[in-house]
Amino acid sequence: MPLGQRAGDKSDSRYCGVEVLDFPAGDGLPAVLTHSLSSAFDFLLAPLVDPDYRPTPGAVLPVAASDLVLSPSQWSSHIVGKISEWIDLDSEDEQLRLDSELTLKQEIAWATHLSLQACVIPPPKRSTCANYARVVNNILQGLTNMQLWLRIPLEKSESMEEDRDKSETVDSWEWWNSFRLLCEHSSQLYVALDILSSLPSMNSLGRWFGEPVRAAILQTDAFLTNARGYPCLSKRHQTLLTGFFNHSVQVIISGRSNHNVSQVSEGVLSRDENHTEDTPTQHALSPYLDYMAYLYQRMDPLPEQERFEPLMDNLEAQTYETFEKDTVKYTQYQRAIAKALVDKVSDDEVSTARTVLMVVGAGRGPLVRASLQAAEETGRTLKVYAVEKNPNAVITLHSLIKLEGWESMVTIISSDMRCWDAPEKADILVSELLGSFGDNELSPECLDGAQRFLKPDGISIPSSYTSFIQPVTASKLHNDIKAHKDIAHFETAYVVKLHRVARLAPPQEVFSFAHPNFSPKATNQRYTKLQFELPQDTGSCLVHGFAGYFDAVLYKDVHLGIEPNTCTPNMFSWFPIFFPLRKPIYVPSESPIEVHFWRCCGATKVWYEWALVAPSPSPIHNSNGRSYWVGL
Amino acid sequence: MPLGQRAGDKSDSRYCGVEVLDFPAGDGLPAVLTHSLSSAFDFLLAPLVDPDYRPTPGAVLPVAASDLVLSPSQWSSHIVGKISEWIDLDSEDEQLRLDSELTLKQEIAWATHLSLQACVIPPPKRSTCANYARVVNNILQGLTNMQLWLRIPLEKSESMEEDRDKSETVDSWEWWNSFRLLCEHSSQLYVALDILSSLPSMNSLGRWFGEPVRAAILQTDAFLTNARGYPCLSKRHQTLLTGFFNHSVQVIISGRSNHNVSQVSEGVLSRDENHTEDTPTQHALSPYLDYMAYLYQRMDPLPEQERFEPLMDNLEAQTYETFEKDTVKYTQYQRAIAKALVDKVSDDEVSTARTVLMVVGAGRGPLVRASLQAAEETGRTLKVYAVEKNPNAVITLHSLIKLEGWESMVTIISSDMRCWDAPEKADILVSELLGSFGDNELSPECLDGAQRFLKPDGISIPSSYTSFIQPVTASKLHNDIKAHKDIAHFETAYVVKLHRVARLAPPQEVFSFAHPNFSPKATNQRYTKLQFELPQDTGSCLVHGFAGYFDAVLYKDVHLGIEPNTCTPNMFSWFPIFFPLRKPIYVPSESPIEVHFWRCCGATKVWYEWALVAPSPSPIHNSNGRSYWVGL
Repeated sequence: MPLGQRAGDKSDSRYCGVEVLDFPAGDGLPAVLTHSLSSAFDFLLAPLVDPDYRPTPGAVLPVAASDLVLSPSQWSSHIVGKISEWIDLDSEDEQLRLDSELTLKQEIAWATHLSLQACVIPPPKRSTCANYARVVNNILQGLTNMQLWLRIPLEKSESMEEDRDKSETVDSWEWWNSFRLLCEHSSQLYVALDILSSLPSMNSLGRWFGEPVRAAILQTDAFLTNARGYPCLSKRHQTLLTGFFNHSVQVIISGRSNHNVSQVSEGVLSRDENHTEDTPTQHALSPYLDYMAYLYQRMDPLPEQERFEPLMDNLEAQTYETFEKDTVKYTQYQRAIAKALVDKVSDDEVSTARTVLMVVGAGRGPLVRASLQAAEETGRTLKVYAVEKNPNAVITLHSLIKLEGWESMVTIISSDMRCWDAPEKADILVSELLGSFGDNELSPECLDGAQRFLKPDGISIPSSYTSFIQPVTASKLHNDIKAHKDIAHFETAYVVKLHRVARLAPPQEVFSFAHPNFSPKATNQRYTKLQFELPQDTGSCLVHGFAGYFDAVLYKDVHLGIEPNTCTPNMFSWFPIFFPLRKPIYVPSESPIEVHFWRCCGATKVWYEWALVAPSPSPIHNSNGRSYWVGL
Repeated sequence: MPLGQRAGDKSDSRYCGVEVLDFPAGDGLPAVLTHSLSSAFDFLLAPLVDPDYRPTPGAVLPVAASDLVLSPSQWSSHIVGKISEWIDLDSEDEQLRLDSELTLKQEIAWATHLSLQACVIPPPKRSTCANYARVVNNILQGLTNMQLWLRIPLEKSESMEEDRDKSETVDSWEWWNSFRLLCEHSSQLYVALDILSSLPSMNSLGRWFGEPVRAAILQTDAFLTNARGYPCLSKRHQTLLTGFFNHSVQVIISGRSNHNVSQVSEGVLSRDENHTEDTPTQHALSPYLDYMAYLYQRMDPLPEQERFEPLMDNLEAQTYETFEKDTVKYTQYQRAIAKALVDKVSDDEVSTARTVLMVVGAGRGPLVRASLQAAEETGRTLKVYAVEKNPNAVITLHSLIKLEGWESMVTIISSDMRCWDAPEKADILVSELLGSFGDNELSPECLDGAQRFLKPDGISIPSSYTSFIQPVTASKLHNDIKAHKDIAHFETAYVVKLHRVARLAPPQEVFSFAHPNFSPKATNQRYTKLQFELPQDTGSCLVHGFAGYFDAVLYKDVHLGIEPNTCTPNMFSWFPIFFPLRKPIYVPSESPIEVHFWRCCGATKVWYEWALVAPSPSPIHNSNGRSYWVGL
């Protein structure tokens, strides 16, 4: 039974599991499952094989339950297998190592036979775990559907400044990182994080949101007790859990109950304390589950734009219709045009002056409408030229103008703006050619061409725009790109909703363009070097690439953008852009990240190249625009 | 005219060039070329374009000489282009950056038009050279035949222990490393090293022998003056130059003459000092060239085994004939067998005792011959079983025995040793199943099978063997493997002559096997972790993989092997083995290298897996033996 209803949330984070600590001897597993499901848990993390068993030639594996005692769908929907925790693949004891390898392979084979969706494999027992990783990697090569979740305690000790060299600092993220590097970022290898009572810093926790975390195993010891004797979590734990819910991570409750609260106190579930054998007792961990449900249900519904998800799709395939619905965007345009009109025509001149405004790329007319509304709002007289090269959009535009009775104010130019010869020059040039990275859809080149229609003192709306990037951990995106098995996909930027991503440092400016620009030496080539410093308490991390955004000044103080710190709220026309790195880069704690970005212009195309310079140089990505470009 | 004759040397290091310092105005280049060739230089490093020129729209490039003043073969055989040294692609001055990019592209295009084999591009002007690398990388994408040699001064300052953090240490290898990483290890990008008067430590120099160094540009300032006033080099410079000659690097003399030695003193070239205009003057740098020729000719001829070069080939294709010629190897076998015979049969028993010796894998009989010679030498009586599964080899074996009259002593068993049922047990089992890495051709498995023919106190020759590895820089090998464009080739070990390789740390033991081994728990699986510490003065380096060797104890103190420190001299049956890394690993100065090696045994095959753990984890190579294995 899911934790609750949350509008828009279809992720796994609605489900909550419980860890079975004791081996269910005999055929105890079905009873444990029934009891847990009836107590509103959704699944079990359960041992599959007697943990006291050690490999014996010819012995039958002492499994928790034969495959016949549960139905196939029960096995696959409600059981996550827990591999025996005694295994130690990196022991100095060769016999233990060999027994561990055999056991791990036998238990995984059994779980595969049961068609389980996932198995949790125990935490590495020591800091070097190369042999464990080797055996898991071998197993991963042969798995088709089942996932392996490597259990890792969520801990990071912060070393004191003075004894940094002496004290042994523990950062369990480093274990995970070594393990997955050895397993070559396998897309079937995930993390199950053990949440303990103490938590490292938020910056350090944030790294995990970009990692493939499937489950947070919440220890009952991590809970506090509220005034009424019920379990609850510290503010920091609550923030972390909310973060996990927002990143599709599911919770598993684990441990012994520390809160023996009376189950009759709340009335609804009122039952005689001397319940008969037929009345099932409530699960000992139910109070913890109740608290999880409370936390989950307390969250805000997902915002509208979060539900809209064209993941990894080309936005050009979206229709005009979708974009025209972005009312926030056109309201900003209208505000900018209104301010420009007031600047162009003083209140004294209102009755005599006529402002010429050109919309380049008019589409089906939203900017024409915004312009006319701005004129009406400010009492200015407007002559609008609507230039549009798509003949189908032009048909709609004609209907719109007739319908609205704008014939006297609007002239439709069915032409490519590059070929058009304007009959007069404009005071204001309005366009919406911006991409997620600002200049990535040739806005600079188009507006350079269009400014020949503009008077020397004319205004371009937008008047300037700037792109931004920030380094991110994004293992899911990286694996999606890797699945293509070529270099070209790693040299392509993606317009994509950034869901399971860790943002490692604040965004910085990359390229800026201002319009109009009548300088004869103006070029649209750009070269920018950026250096990112990660917060000191982050620890080391893996960078898969850079998230990109833009911010545009439409006119004066009216801006529009998706840069996270200044983004225009409730706008859905743009998702971020993602520039991947061919090889994820390990960034040691406190090492700066230096990245270089180029915007290159050729005779027939415009493209970006990018390269990491520190902590270690990457190859130049997209050399000569070989993989990714926009044609002129 | 080559520097001289050296038996077996067919490399480019025989050729010596000279750098043209001044721009040959007008059509001066042919005259400079004629003069240099007549002074026994082989080629020029010459500027192609007037260094005072800056890009001007519409201007004609002021080239040193039109393509018509030299023949196509003169251009391609005798001219290495020198790109203008003023270019500065990483300047803060955008105009200079754009001019530099244009000039570099124009000059390379001109060099391509002239069909030059190579151009030298100037050293980076600052420590970050990402834009320079980007432009060069763009150019490399379009080059088909021409090479680019990046000029790099050979320098590395050693920082004092106490002020390590304060002083800026320079290691020009780091420039090269960043540059080639950004250019993605392009196989057309090489190094031209400027050799100055001071040299860094030998360990630091040694790194360059694994890098793609094409030329050593020897500055006249680097020369000393001998007692007779002639130029000469310090011992350390001589050692370095000899190293370059041995690694196919060619020398280019550069600079102004500091040694105005009289050219008549040596008699042979005697000429009137008041030479007429028709008599060409000797080249001002001839004394330096003479010294180079002296150094070159003084070197030892290449040893016989160095000339034998089955680079990257599968040794199995070699015939028995080649291997039987390895007399050193069979002499060692004979010595070992003799010692074993004396141990088995005391002098008192000589007349009565007969020793049973089995040769498993007898081939065409070299070990049968060695055994009988050992018996004759020690006066022991021998009964030999020669087991061989190749029916063609068996035919030769029969002829040999008849020819030599060994019928009474030798029984030929034409059978796979796994199927044979021996009529009696052996005292001595002799085999030559060792590969370059010792156990890599299933010697352990074969001898485990064969030891059922051996008496409990029997002797196996070899009685034990051990494999060794050491980390190496090997950019040439890496690029050869990369050319296959798949992962499988990077997960394969190669038996290969290691020519252009830098050995970074002494070899360490990997796996050992001893025979016979009657323990019931014996396994041929192995797991070894090794940690390599590089000498402190090496500096940082790039590791492309591991060179592997073996050493075998044939019997007691008689050994056989190719481990560099203990190798048996003048043996040519085995080249080293090379285990590549999929991605070359940057090893910061003084960081240890930790590598793990596994020998894995399955039901039908044996294979190795390997992974780097420090300085950063690599993927597990050859998981499940997916790319490289030996079938059982």
